[in-house]
Amino acid sequence: MTVSYRLSEIVAQLGGRVLGDAAVRISQIATLENAQPDQISFLTNSKYRAQLASTQAGAVILGAEDADETKLPRIISDNPYAYFARVSALLNPLPEAQPGIHPDAIIGEGAVIDPTASIAATTVIGRGARIGANCVIGEGCIIGTNVVLGSHARLYPRVVIYHDCVIGENLIAHSGAVIGSDGFGFAMDAGRWVKIQQIGRVVIGNDVEIGANTTIDRGALDDTVIEDGVKLDNQIQVAHNVHIGAHTAIAGCVGIAGSTTIGRYCRIGGSAGILGHLQIADHVEIAAFTLIGKSIREAGTYAAIFPFAKAEDWRRNTVHLRHLDDLVQRVKMLEQELKAINLKN
Amino acid sequence: MTVSYRLSEIVAQLGGRVLGDAAVRISQIATLENAQPDQISFLTNSKYRAQLASTQAGAVILGAEDADETKLPRIISDNPYAYFARVSALLNPLPEAQPGIHPDAIIGEGAVIDPTASIAATTVIGRGARIGANCVIGEGCIIGTNVVLGSHARLYPRVVIYHDCVIGENLIAHSGAVIGSDGFGFAMDAGRWVKIQQIGRVVIGNDVEIGANTTIDRGALDDTVIEDGVKLDNQIQVAHNVHIGAHTAIAGCVGIAGSTTIGRYCRIGGSAGILGHLQIADHVEIAAFTLIGKSIREAGTYAAIFPFAKAEDWRRNTVHLRHLDDLVQRVKMLEQELKAINLKN
Amino acid sequence: MTVSYRLSEIVAQLGGRVLGDAAVRISQIATLENAQPDQISFLTNSKYRAQLASTQAGAVILGAEDADETKLPRIISDNPYAYFARVSALLNPLPEAQPGIHPDAIIGEGAVIDPTASIAATTVIGRGARIGANCVIGEGCIIGTNVVLGSHARLYPRVVIYHDCVIGENLIAHSGAVIGSDGFGFAMDAGRWVKIQQIGRVVIGNDVEIGANTTIDRGALDDTVIEDGVKLDNQIQVAHNVHIGAHTAIAGCVGIAGSTTIGRYCRIGGSAGILGHLQIADHVEIAAFTLIGKSIREAGTYAAIFPFAKAEDWRRNTVHLRHLDDLVQRVKMLEQELKAINLKN
Repeated sequence: MTVSYRLSEIVAQLGGRVLGDAAVRISQIATLENAQPDQISFLTNSKYRAQLASTQAGAVILGAEDADETKLPRIISDNPYAYFARVSALLNPLPEAQPGIHPDAIIGEGAVIDPTASIAATTVIGRGARIGANCVIGEGCIIGTNVVLGSHARLYPRVVIYHDCVIGENLIAHSGAVIGSDGFGFAMDAGRWVKIQQIGRVVIGNDVEIGANTTIDRGALDDTVIEDGVKLDNQIQVAHNVHIGAHTAIAGCVGIAGSTTIGRYCRIGGSAGILGHLQIADHVEIAAFTLIGKSIREAGTYAAIFPFAKAEDWRRNTVHLRHLDDLVQRVKMLEQELKAINLKN
Repeated sequence: MTVSYRLSEIVAQLGGRVLGDAAVRISQIATLENAQPDQISFLTNSKYRAQLASTQAGAVILGAEDADETKLPRIISDNPYAYFARVSALLNPLPEAQPGIHPDAIIGEGAVIDPTASIAATTVIGRGARIGANCVIGEGCIIGTNVVLGSHARLYPRVVIYHDCVIGENLIAHSGAVIGSDGFGFAMDAGRWVKIQQIGRVVIGNDVEIGANTTIDRGALDDTVIEDGVKLDNQIQVAHNVHIGAHTAIAGCVGIAGSTTIGRYCRIGGSAGILGHLQIADHVEIAAFTLIGKSIREAGTYAAIFPFAKAEDWRRNTVHLRHLDDLVQRVKMLEQELKAINLKN
Repeated sequence: MTVSYRLSEIVAQLGGRVLGDAAVRISQIATLENAQPDQISFLTNSKYRAQLASTQAGAVILGAEDADETKLPRIISDNPYAYFARVSALLNPLPEAQPGIHPDAIIGEGAVIDPTASIAATTVIGRGARIGANCVIGEGCIIGTNVVLGSHARLYPRVVIYHDCVIGENLIAHSGAVIGSDGFGFAMDAGRWVKIQQIGRVVIGNDVEIGANTTIDRGALDDTVIEDGVKLDNQIQVAHNVHIGAHTAIAGCVGIAGSTTIGRYCRIGGSAGILGHLQIADHVEIAAFTLIGKSIREAGTYAAIFPFAKAEDWRRNTVHLRHLDDLVQRVKMLEQELKAINLKN
């Protein structure tokens, strides 16, 4: 696969404007440090500006404010990071998948598979499932009974979608993702847990990406909902009846407990957690490793990270956390005593 | 699938008593807010009591204390939440699985599969494995050599059980669950890790549920043991030689390190952790996001959550944690000085 | 499988020296507490020394310092824990896998599979992939296009390796592991996330073990790199462009964010996290549940664990964390007032 484009061809497709030689031909994208003369690089972080002088790149993508920082052929964009993303997609098209159903795939009765879709070997499509146009479903996927999968989905190997889930267009799901497993619901009765049937579904909008080994449970009664444009990294756990607003991005290993609603355009750092039955407003950022235990009504950035230290320092300081209330009482006492002394003097 | 029952039929099967019209016919269960006239709802949390007045439900499940809160046809139960679970199971029977072995399943030599069991396409049953009556094993499962799987197991697609593991009756295991992978054991020798063979098994009792992408390692020498009635949510990691007592419930993303013993009827919150070689008593509750670093000998609730705040407040307060010992020394000094002053005066 | 060895045969293979009867025949390894007369045990932790007197073991492995603590036949080793590991491997050889390709495996065009390799049923080998000598690839694995897998790999069922990844010799990968999934990279543009193609690979050295359901993302532009001898436990998330130095061992549920470099011989505790773009020196130990938010330049042990307590104690103390800065200001004020008083007196 060797695709290449002139800068003039790139801006014709993606916008922006060229400064310098628009005939330069580019076949790959790379960092300023590693780029070769047939590659284009980009500057999106000012701390790499010094590398502009020494890069071997054949061209660079820059914001308007950096337009004069180099004499290299360059594309000027309002949003050079997004431009880089688009150039990368242009230069690295996904491998074409052969439309059709591999003879080693297993298709359930009544399943409707668009003829442009590609179903790989060892994949199982359940009864009554509907697979949209141009879907590419990798090896070992299991699509449950009556699942609806919109067009242009790309499922990497070994994705499971349980029965009755409904998914919009352009889903990307990575290996090991599980969509629609039972929520964790039990009632204690006479010393035993009684399982609560999980009869809701998972309903996913358009343009969602789901990382490797991420799990999204189906709703208990109503549905679990993932809105348009949500991006979920690897190993995230989304419990039953969670609702994630459009364009929210969540980093790896986050856990979200049942029935919590997260707003639009939120960003949640790695290994964070959100307890159940909470409301998180739009445009909330949550730091990595932070547990959110109450609803957040206001946009902003929230954190709860214990600062790390050398083990001996950590131990020396941390031991006092178990007596913090005592310490506060002692300070109160000191304040009262001092006040008494000051009154006397 | 349209099942429906009169209230009189429900109490005949599940106990409880009807107040109002026992002939009302019910076909589904729903929240008070969303229920329709052919649906039954329930009140198990007093904060929803106001919704009793406005619900469209055809009937409701109530505790004795709420029996007079509505004139709707109602079932009175000592434990309305468990009753709701049982009604839900009644109205939502699992889809019947066809007994027999799908022609695209692969069965190892000497495997014994009960004729009432259902083995789906692309599933592999290892040599000498024994699959009990009425088991339903979904697509893409891999059951290792000599595994014993008790009756009425329901394995969703892509569950793996490694060789020699022994499992009781009524197991539910969700997609991506891995039972019996090697524990993490290595000895350092001359700058290299030497692997310690993991020769124990995983032994699981009756009525256990295992969530999606949860992993349970086999024992190093002795077995890893999960007792009856244990419920494990998604993405839990259970290390080698852990022992989990009966009826303990563990929420998603929890990690339990090697050789720890957890008691019966414990409840462990999401993303909590328990270090290795510890003993946790019966009836211990551990809050979400809490690391347990010492044995717990006494029933009760334990927590270690760092409270979240707006990032700037968090930063302003947290910076002092690195100097907490200094602060304590300063308070001590103040106390001594004040004592000296008070003695003088 | 009944292997057995005389002590004399064991030391002939593994070194060390025998004290007592070297003709004793051993067929398994066990703890001091559970060992039988045909089994060998070991003492690597002084707190079990008392069990030496009562063990039923036929022989024991001891360090030189313990050579006289028992009269049992014994093997003396400089590193009894590593010796135990080697004896365990000797007594518990992995089951022999039949070389060859199972008829229910699917092999892509141009794939080159060494004739000594074993490819199980329902496994798919992608186009152009190369599988080295003596590899054992379990059921349901998906090996992507052009993957290079070195000799003596052992892949348990349902491992996925995405296209173009390159792996050294002796890989062990457990079920559900995903190698080479897309890194989490998006650029925000006009209210929508634009995906950044992940065109790097995962490159893995020799003697690496990867736990169940662990995920390792491919690089965005350059590669994600795992050096020789790295041991990864279950459910670890390794983001794009991470570099893990040789012989580092990482416990379960750890998350490592993008572009972080971890040194050699590090040990990282369970559920720890490391933020992105950091440098961690060689020989760093990180406690369980600890988030590392800055680079660590110096070997040593680091921690950030919030100490757990009974919930009511935790609550009483923790509430003050939100006012820690106030407390520090109050102590400062007290110090100033006392100084003023002392000056006056």
